[in-house]
Amino acid sequence: MTSLAIDYHGGGVLRERRYTPIDPGPDEVSIAVAFTGICGTDLKIVHGAMDHRITSPWPIGHEMSGTIEAVGSDVVGWQRGDQVTVMPLEWCNRCPACARGHRHVCQNLVFVGIDSPGSLQQRWNVPARLLVRIPDHVSLQTAALSEPTAVAVHDVRRGGVGAADQVVVIGGGPIGLLIGLVASHVGADVLVSEPATFRRRLASELGLRTIDPTADDLNATVADWSSGKGAEVAFEVSGSQAGVRALTDVLAVRGRGVVVAIHTQPTLVDLMAAFWKELDIVAARVYRREDFEEAVALLADEVIHADSLITDVVPLSETAAAVARLASGEEVVKLLIDSR
Amino acid sequence: MTSLAIDYHGGGVLRERRYTPIDPGPDEVSIAVAFTGICGTDLKIVHGAMDHRITSPWPIGHEMSGTIEAVGSDVVGWQRGDQVTVMPLEWCNRCPACARGHRHVCQNLVFVGIDSPGSLQQRWNVPARLLVRIPDHVSLQTAALSEPTAVAVHDVRRGGVGAADQVVVIGGGPIGLLIGLVASHVGADVLVSEPATFRRRLASELGLRTIDPTADDLNATVADWSSGKGAEVAFEVSGSQAGVRALTDVLAVRGRGVVVAIHTQPTLVDLMAAFWKELDIVAARVYRREDFEEAVALLADEVIHADSLITDVVPLSETAAAVARLASGEEVVKLLIDSR
Repeated sequence: MTSLAIDYHGGGVLRERRYTPIDPGPDEVSIAVAFTGICGTDLKIVHGAMDHRITSPWPIGHEMSGTIEAVGSDVVGWQRGDQVTVMPLEWCNRCPACARGHRHVCQNLVFVGIDSPGSLQQRWNVPARLLVRIPDHVSLQTAALSEPTAVAVHDVRRGGVGAADQVVVIGGGPIGLLIGLVASHVGADVLVSEPATFRRRLASELGLRTIDPTADDLNATVADWSSGKGAEVAFEVSGSQAGVRALTDVLAVRGRGVVVAIHTQPTLVDLMAAFWKELDIVAARVYRREDFEEAVALLADEVIHADSLITDVVPLSETAAAVARLASGEEVVKLLIDSR
Repeated sequence: MTSLAIDYHGGGVLRERRYTPIDPGPDEVSIAVAFTGICGTDLKIVHGAMDHRITSPWPIGHEMSGTIEAVGSDVVGWQRGDQVTVMPLEWCNRCPACARGHRHVCQNLVFVGIDSPGSLQQRWNVPARLLVRIPDHVSLQTAALSEPTAVAVHDVRRGGVGAADQVVVIGGGPIGLLIGLVASHVGADVLVSEPATFRRRLASELGLRTIDPTADDLNATVADWSSGKGAEVAFEVSGSQAGVRALTDVLAVRGRGVVVAIHTQPTLVDLMAAFWKELDIVAARVYRREDFEEAVALLADEVIHADSLITDVVPLSETAAAVARLASGEEVVKLLIDSR
């Protein structure tokens, strides 16, 4: 029986392929993929913006869940039927960054699902070392949010968010909302700045404060909310120049701004504000293993209700149309592709 | 007998004034000013760029040394003849930043010598709480470098410089050189990037590595020097767009970039490099009391040889001409004005 894969061919082209699954290698498992979430980076890829990294046609996809179907001969601790997700990072263990303990930002990092084949297929062989266990009671839809939740956990850790901090999240997409939820769980009071009504409404339903920065004055609101102090921590998740400006504007003296969104072009930063308030501006990229495991625990314990964020689930064969709809900015938060 | 002051009148005008010294207030001391260093901010002031802050004619000057001439009635612990410098910060103790322990970046900070009268005069009354003791064996010329050295101590602390770190200092003016010396004292290996031959030669004489970034490729040099790792810490002390670009370029994965120079306009920052290497970009402003006391100790112990940095000493009456010469970029590193 053959399986279905959706290969990315470069130039914005996604194409179906039927294939016969092969057995896992000695240190691999074969996963029956259940769900794959589509993220902003995936959208950039299918818009052709990262064709230099996708060097041959293969499936993208790195936010996933599934069940082990077969186990390689050298793999211990895993068996057929186990629910899993994949932490999609392969580091080299040889570069200066790895030597200094920063393996998650290895200088030769392979991001699985971008730099190597990903999960937009039905049967996926991956090294067992990348597996993260999903408890049996957790639904596979929920488990598919492990990776973006790990991003949020890492971001909140990078921000050093403390209980009772006032936190501003600039941009209320999936990552922004997850950051807001993780920061709330830590004890922070969170304000999400987001122009889209649909996303703002969802943020409100999730218990977060919201502001429409195109209708209300964000700086004045934060100043009022914090009695002139400003926010202890702010997250730039919008990817916009306006968001970077807001980041330095809303922070308190000695505040910490976390740049989460990927800004592919050099961006104007108000270094005078950074100087005046002696800010820390820190970038955040992916996650460490501990972030990933914490993310799974937050989802398993229903601290984060994945169902609230999953707005669309479509079959693998409809990937291209679903991605186009997501890119169009329709009322989608998290889109899952169902490979079962 | 009257004293001489050099008042800044706005519009770039410095003017001499004779005055009769008044007795110190109850919590003040009257200082016979010895030396005042001129810094980049002073140059900005006399170029009219900060006229909004200098609200009435008064002397500028905040890098100084002197001897107590008279002591106010409520002052304890100080007496006539004590050698002193002044930590030129007055905080409000009431704002949110003060409440959170960040008094040196108080939201209502008064920078003495900018926002209130400074030391370009012969007799200066200041609150005793601003005094920092200069040991008797330290020359008053050396003591006049306490304030810029405190800046460097604070910057190196903000950078979290560790022993054996490879550190790049972008800009070899007085602050850049002091940062290099303080970082070296911590145990770091320091490379100063500076286009001016005169300053580069001085850096070499002080035992620092140097590079002319207009003649040699800074990034390639750092990559080679660090075997592909990059610098653990870098300091942007040039105030230029090129310097900000170099800051993110030269850093290692998880490196720490300290923005020391004041960038009055929003500046392009390579946030992609910051993301890729998960950098911390931190701003640094002034110093805490502990930085100031450490600076005095470094000068007193001759860890930092002030004499190497002091290139010019001129009488108070020649301030205007000396400042003009400094601004012209002639071969001056640290200019001291002698008020004795």
